[in-house]
Amino acid sequence: MLAKVYVTLKNGVLDPQGEAIRHALGSLGFDGVNGVRQGKVIELDLADGTTEAQINDMCERLLANTVIESYRIEIA
Amino acid sequence: MLAKVYVTLKNGVLDPQGEAIRHALGSLGFDGVNGVRQGKVIELDLADGTTEAQINDMCERLLANTVIESYRIEIA
Repeated sequence: MLAKVYVTLKNGVLDPQGEAIRHALGSLGFDGVNGVRQGKVIELDLADGTTEAQINDMCERLLANTVIESYRIEIA
Repeated sequence: MLAKVYVTLKNGVLDPQGEAIRHALGSLGFDGVNGVRQGKVIELDLADGTTEAQINDMCERLLANTVIESYRIEIA
């Protein structure tokens, strides 16, 4: 089974990488880019029968830093 | 308007970061993790009226390295 985990910075947490992208888009002539935030997608190829609770556990313990990041699990 | 761009490595391109995550999950006792690939999500807050063609252009010129990465645009 395939699961996708989306990890994004929580609101209010500074995102210098996103800010750099926003600036670079402006330099390339793209107007109207008000804000950019960058996050991660982690695609997991898991053994069948892995529960969502287990994936949640993976996120809490390794994939996301829950102090500053939030995550969303999508099971395909 | 809000657009999300998902950038992932193409199949066949080595992903050492994903491999490191797979190994770390194994070390933490999570069995049955067959493969992990890591990609990026870029959330763009754009002026209303920005076309998908323009977002496509942003991807081709800055957000993705189309030699090794593919991208998918999602407009919210």
